[in-house]
Amino acid sequence: MAKIEQVAVVGGTHGNEFSGIYLLKKWNKRPEYLEREGLTIHTLFANTKAHEENKRYIDCDLNRQFISTSLADNSLTNYEQSRAKAINAELGPKGDAKSDFIIDLHNTTSNMGPTLILLQSDLFNRQLGAYVLAKMPEAVIVFEDQVSLEEHYFLASVAAQGVIVEIGPQPQSVVRQDVLDYMEAMTQHILDFVVLFNKDEVTSLPESYQAYRYIESLKLPEDEHGERIGMVHKNVQDQDFKVLTKGDPIFTLFDGGEICYQGDYEAYPHFINEAAYYDNNLAMSLAKKVSMLTK
Amino acid sequence: MAKIEQVAVVGGTHGNEFSGIYLLKKWNKRPEYLEREGLTIHTLFANTKAHEENKRYIDCDLNRQFISTSLADNSLTNYEQSRAKAINAELGPKGDAKSDFIIDLHNTTSNMGPTLILLQSDLFNRQLGAYVLAKMPEAVIVFEDQVSLEEHYFLASVAAQGVIVEIGPQPQSVVRQDVLDYMEAMTQHILDFVVLFNKDEVTSLPESYQAYRYIESLKLPEDEHGERIGMVHKNVQDQDFKVLTKGDPIFTLFDGGEICYQGDYEAYPHFINEAAYYDNNLAMSLAKKVSMLTK
Repeated sequence: MAKIEQVAVVGGTHGNEFSGIYLLKKWNKRPEYLEREGLTIHTLFANTKAHEENKRYIDCDLNRQFISTSLADNSLTNYEQSRAKAINAELGPKGDAKSDFIIDLHNTTSNMGPTLILLQSDLFNRQLGAYVLAKMPEAVIVFEDQVSLEEHYFLASVAAQGVIVEIGPQPQSVVRQDVLDYMEAMTQHILDFVVLFNKDEVTSLPESYQAYRYIESLKLPEDEHGERIGMVHKNVQDQDFKVLTKGDPIFTLFDGGEICYQGDYEAYPHFINEAAYYDNNLAMSLAKKVSMLTK
Repeated sequence: MAKIEQVAVVGGTHGNEFSGIYLLKKWNKRPEYLEREGLTIHTLFANTKAHEENKRYIDCDLNRQFISTSLADNSLTNYEQSRAKAINAELGPKGDAKSDFIIDLHNTTSNMGPTLILLQSDLFNRQLGAYVLAKMPEAVIVFEDQVSLEEHYFLASVAAQGVIVEIGPQPQSVVRQDVLDYMEAMTQHILDFVVLFNKDEVTSLPESYQAYRYIESLKLPEDEHGERIGMVHKNVQDQDFKVLTKGDPIFTLFDGGEICYQGDYEAYPHFINEAAYYDNNLAMSLAKKVSMLTK
């Protein structure tokens, strides 16, 4: 892999996820927090208009607009679809990007703690996960490598390497100090790793480590008319990355009934009851636990 | 005090506080959950339009529009100002209301647990607080009796008696089962109390109990241009109703500094880092602990 030189640090991709937005403000006043040997850092506030309206987005979710075919489709012209093309021009273009690496900063209302989402499982990403975990033992490493980078719809997929820093729990439109501190620390560890990786000086990593791999998403219970008839079970609420096995209750119906997990694998739920996912009636994501090698 | 016969149970006064909205749906299908001897129950979904847009409000906070002078001011015509007049016609009019009692259901992003906010400290409210606390020991009773009912701007002030059920922590636009369960249980206890009070059968209350009285609100730190320069200190985050004494850090500045509490009384913060209060740059409310008598 070629050296990483051009790094984009992006906040405010969702306008009501405040940590990245406040950190960008801080770092723009004090760029020394991001500066690293051999790296040129570019910061980007991705959706200022949504932030001004204190919403996740104006017309549609910006962080779902970066599939290569969508970027090439000039009939997609709403606010976020247009903004995605502008960001692709600024940081990309995807497939031949001027940015070598993108760090996109997000919050979740779910109790996920400091989570690093990696889009590929090549040596760079596997070692990055191990490095962050070594520096921040409370971190959680999630691989969302179920599709190719070209098919990924995340902003971070515009560069050949991109990651998502996802910290919660934080309500929408709030700044929590603990969450802000985690986000800043994780971003710094990622940048430190890039410098070491460039110099081929990554050392002292364990042979392998425990991570998670995204498998599927579960919907909230609906009736035949598509009306929501239940909610996340109180046993599951806030229990992100705690195992679910077949027969565990996962939903409570408003009429008092329960629905149990019926999957045939040990599932690690995350993004549990994330506010923004109600748009698509999603209740949680499920992952499998995996052992990742650092060689 | 005359008997309470006409009771209004209100949800969705803020469109992104989901618990009351989902409970109204449930109760409209199963009215037996609210039915009580001698009471006529009227339910009201106060701001459906804001809920459809998944926002607290369209133009301004509906729960600040019920001061008598505002209700009488026909020059106030935006969406919530108009909606307040319609609700006042439906449940009121304030000062001579057809509703005898209003229960208004709210959520907060703050870690306040199941809180009952009482607008007056007459015998009915003092005994109601004691009764709810006896039935639900984890409840918190807060008196916001700093102004007369006429000057109160809350929806619940339209009737001669009105209370706010305020349960958190719950992010905006989310349903948590624990919060929903608390709200339903507290509402039922309140209705049970009203039946007993009507029949003069309230018994077995302690002579006095511990409650809180609202004193003032604190703003988030701003610079001379009105720009926010700090956040709630991590020591205070989630510590609703835990005492603050002079010298305790309450804000962390984005540049790393700290601001300490300078008040000359033992303050009990609540609504700490409530998302909706950022509009007015409010950081938290402060209360004093008080002993309330039940005679």
